[in-house]
Amino acid sequence: MFEATKLGRTLSKEAFKTQLDTLRAELLEVQRALRETQITVIVLVAGVDGAGKGEVVNRLNEWMDTRGMQTFAFWGETDEERERPHYWRFWRTLPLRGQIAILFGGWYQAPIEQRFDNLCSDTDLDAELNRVVDLERMLIQDGTLILKFWFHLPEKIQQKRLKELARDDRSRWKMRGDKAKFAEGYRRFEEVAERVIRHTDRGISPWYLIEASDRRYRDITVGRTLQAAIQGRINQPSGLTQAPPTSHAPKLPDEPSARITILDHLDLNQTLSAKEYKARLQKGQAEANELAWAAYNAKRSCVMVFEGVDAAGKGGAIRRITEAIDARLYRTIQAAAPTDEEKAHHYLWRFWNHVPRAGRITIYDRSWYGRVLVERVEGFAAEADWHRAYAEINAFEEQLLASGVILLKFWMQIGKDEQLQRFKAREQVLYKQHKITEEDWRNREKWDDYQQAVNEMVIRTSTEYAPWTLIGANDKGHARIAVIETVCQTLRRALKEEGSPNKRHHTFGKTDAQ
Amino acid sequence: MFEATKLGRTLSKEAFKTQLDTLRAELLEVQRALRETQITVIVLVAGVDGAGKGEVVNRLNEWMDTRGMQTFAFWGETDEERERPHYWRFWRTLPLRGQIAILFGGWYQAPIEQRFDNLCSDTDLDAELNRVVDLERMLIQDGTLILKFWFHLPEKIQQKRLKELARDDRSRWKMRGDKAKFAEGYRRFEEVAERVIRHTDRGISPWYLIEASDRRYRDITVGRTLQAAIQGRINQPSGLTQAPPTSHAPKLPDEPSARITILDHLDLNQTLSAKEYKARLQKGQAEANELAWAAYNAKRSCVMVFEGVDAAGKGGAIRRITEAIDARLYRTIQAAAPTDEEKAHHYLWRFWNHVPRAGRITIYDRSWYGRVLVERVEGFAAEADWHRAYAEINAFEEQLLASGVILLKFWMQIGKDEQLQRFKAREQVLYKQHKITEEDWRNREKWDDYQQAVNEMVIRTSTEYAPWTLIGANDKGHARIAVIETVCQTLRRALKEEGSPNKRHHTFGKTDAQ
Repeated sequence: MFEATKLGRTLSKEAFKTQLDTLRAELLEVQRALRETQITVIVLVAGVDGAGKGEVVNRLNEWMDTRGMQTFAFWGETDEERERPHYWRFWRTLPLRGQIAILFGGWYQAPIEQRFDNLCSDTDLDAELNRVVDLERMLIQDGTLILKFWFHLPEKIQQKRLKELARDDRSRWKMRGDKAKFAEGYRRFEEVAERVIRHTDRGISPWYLIEASDRRYRDITVGRTLQAAIQGRINQPSGLTQAPPTSHAPKLPDEPSARITILDHLDLNQTLSAKEYKARLQKGQAEANELAWAAYNAKRSCVMVFEGVDAAGKGGAIRRITEAIDARLYRTIQAAAPTDEEKAHHYLWRFWNHVPRAGRITIYDRSWYGRVLVERVEGFAAEADWHRAYAEINAFEEQLLASGVILLKFWMQIGKDEQLQRFKAREQVLYKQHKITEEDWRNREKWDDYQQAVNEMVIRTSTEYAPWTLIGANDKGHARIAVIETVCQTLRRALKEEGSPNKRHHTFGKTDAQ
Repeated sequence: MFEATKLGRTLSKEAFKTQLDTLRAELLEVQRALRETQITVIVLVAGVDGAGKGEVVNRLNEWMDTRGMQTFAFWGETDEERERPHYWRFWRTLPLRGQIAILFGGWYQAPIEQRFDNLCSDTDLDAELNRVVDLERMLIQDGTLILKFWFHLPEKIQQKRLKELARDDRSRWKMRGDKAKFAEGYRRFEEVAERVIRHTDRGISPWYLIEASDRRYRDITVGRTLQAAIQGRINQPSGLTQAPPTSHAPKLPDEPSARITILDHLDLNQTLSAKEYKARLQKGQAEANELAWAAYNAKRSCVMVFEGVDAAGKGGAIRRITEAIDARLYRTIQAAAPTDEEKAHHYLWRFWNHVPRAGRITIYDRSWYGRVLVERVEGFAAEADWHRAYAEINAFEEQLLASGVILLKFWMQIGKDEQLQRFKAREQVLYKQHKITEEDWRNREKWDDYQQAVNEMVIRTSTEYAPWTLIGANDKGHARIAVIETVCQTLRRALKEEGSPNKRHHTFGKTDAQ
């Protein structure tokens, strides 16, 4: 693979000078055009040590407008990063639409380093690279352009470069740590790199292998590649040519008996006596508070997702939890209309944003499932987009779980008649009138569509590790008890698990570095 | 002071029950009304140990809608917080307009604890409390309602409570550390608390001293106080009754000779030969990069502010810096139109947001000075608002400096004729056309108003520690060299200072706790 980066390509000083003026003007021009689009650009910079990754990035910052471009290096993780899923630190850096982010190493840094240092196996590496491919595909499908540059040097030139760097006073900082080992391990590094590149070199997000022996050739090539890629992406506004999605769901006959959903199998009418409700609520709440503190002490965080039919009592159920748990331990996030910063990102970004730190709880009152519920039914998301969302959501939740987050997902269901009664009751009570809007009535008309959407959501996202809990909620007392007892049971079980953070695969966070 | 919290006030169980229903409905109602307003509510909770601050906050979370309300406890600082000015962690928690934040201790926690532990003097404490008063006033003038609750117990009851807490298994966590000392130091704690309350009990942000011996009395009183305060604030939409501002600036006669500004004294026509420009640029850039790395290693961060007349060459000057410095060390923030999240906060919030971590550089391309420049001249800010901004800005910058930030502020000035030429030239060059808009032409018509505004800005905000550097920029080369050499000089001097972080007063961050 790397032979093609050892050809001795060069660019003369004169040619460099001549090309540079045009290139700079074109880069600025394309950057300006980019700003008017919905496209985000991510430039990943990786390669062997001494190839001058830093120099290239500084060049780009010199040639382009730094006001629409940000550079991120992933040095040691901060506490706030370490206490969340590894990918949180990358989500933080994702640029707004119309802007460019340059990532040093990015999500490739930890896998390459850790495999090189034999801290993980090839299987671990491959599994991580699958996650990387998923992430990149997801971002690309959301309108992101990803450019991945690999800078390479022949062994001898690398050794020479590293010696120069060690001599040069100003760059001595770069030689800290175990850089020497890298030179020795040249072959091993190539091996790992090849595996990584081979695995992640996809048509939609190719690697550009750049010979880095000649600085002028290297820099002009990067500049031209970047310019052409952005220009190309802008000219093709639909982004990734999307195959018309094949409907995942079987085409159902129209008879009601053929359209039974999992919700039809749910017993909505379980009830509790007032007395039993009170007793079990008190017990459940006391236990929930204890468990929340135990989770805090064990540094386990918890994510609770509440979805449900309008007026099913999500708010009431959430309140029974929040009034029990110490207010310092949780946050409630209501998925209202997104802010414009949220709109300028992938739809998962706003939820990543609120992923709790170790020992904390985030309660999402409606969530990322909006994508496959309201956005699907109301047509806010294109069919291809919500189709894809099932896999994106599963990948997101897998990352939460892998970092030790305890995840609970509730669907609260009431019958259509019960909903009507509650709507009418709300219209009667002065301080509840704001809870019932025209939108609620409109949603009600699409009752069956929503039920089918829920059915498919459960089919596709109720996994062994992140199951949905379906709550029949015609009786509020029963529903609230079911929720809080499920919370307690899940927390209790998770805290008992051996080796607390229930890592289900090798995690690639927590690298040292700089 | 605290005698009035030792009266033995109580509330019977029946009265509690009766009042509670009404109170909860009213609290929800007022919270709902709040959402429709531009008001933010901050509830500060402080007091002696064992008074049940946590219990009260949990009550409020139980009674109210947690979807518009968030609770923050200030336990150990994360490294991202530790590496920024102490108040950064509080700015992070400020709620959006229409919402409520409950802060445990908030900005009072560290001063009280540190004075109690004799880690600072009374003078240090008083100085900090002045900053607290400034902060609160600033937020209140921006439309914030601040409620400060102090919960107090007689000595005997406190001892009893703390013993109970120690016995109770579930709350044993609370007794960690030196809580015992607090009980012993009851009198000393009262002394410190009294000083703090006396100093910060202002008409616009009063303390509520609440007797905490009887839980029912305590909780209902807090609830009622909160409800009444929010309701009262909503009914008085103008917020703080603002005295019509007295114009700070002397009323000038109309003759040009009487309206000379500091900018008229600036020599705009200094020039550099192309050769000298090139040589000094190269030297300056090399040094800037070295100094940026030195600052990184010394963990000193740096904030650069660029303001200036339209077309004065801010962008070009910034680029000469960014192309020199390693892209991993800086961020450029362009103060474009605020996002809606930014709009829902105090105008300084968006700039606080980007304050760099230790060793990093933030370059603000236009800045918080917009308040006293464009917002003043164009009438976007009310007179009282921009008048006040001078002091707010000075306080903000003082905090940056106190935490060891190196601060540079540049005003770039060109003559009116030079500006006209540059505008016209921009209209000629294809890829510069976007840089010239109708707004630029409109601003130009208000040239004199802007010059007067700059003059006053310099008068009020060019302080010994945070001076403005005025750059005569008719010659681009001269201006760029002046900027980069000032950057180098300032960094060099700052890094030589003894005891690196140039703390000019006791800083109250970096407390341990929980």
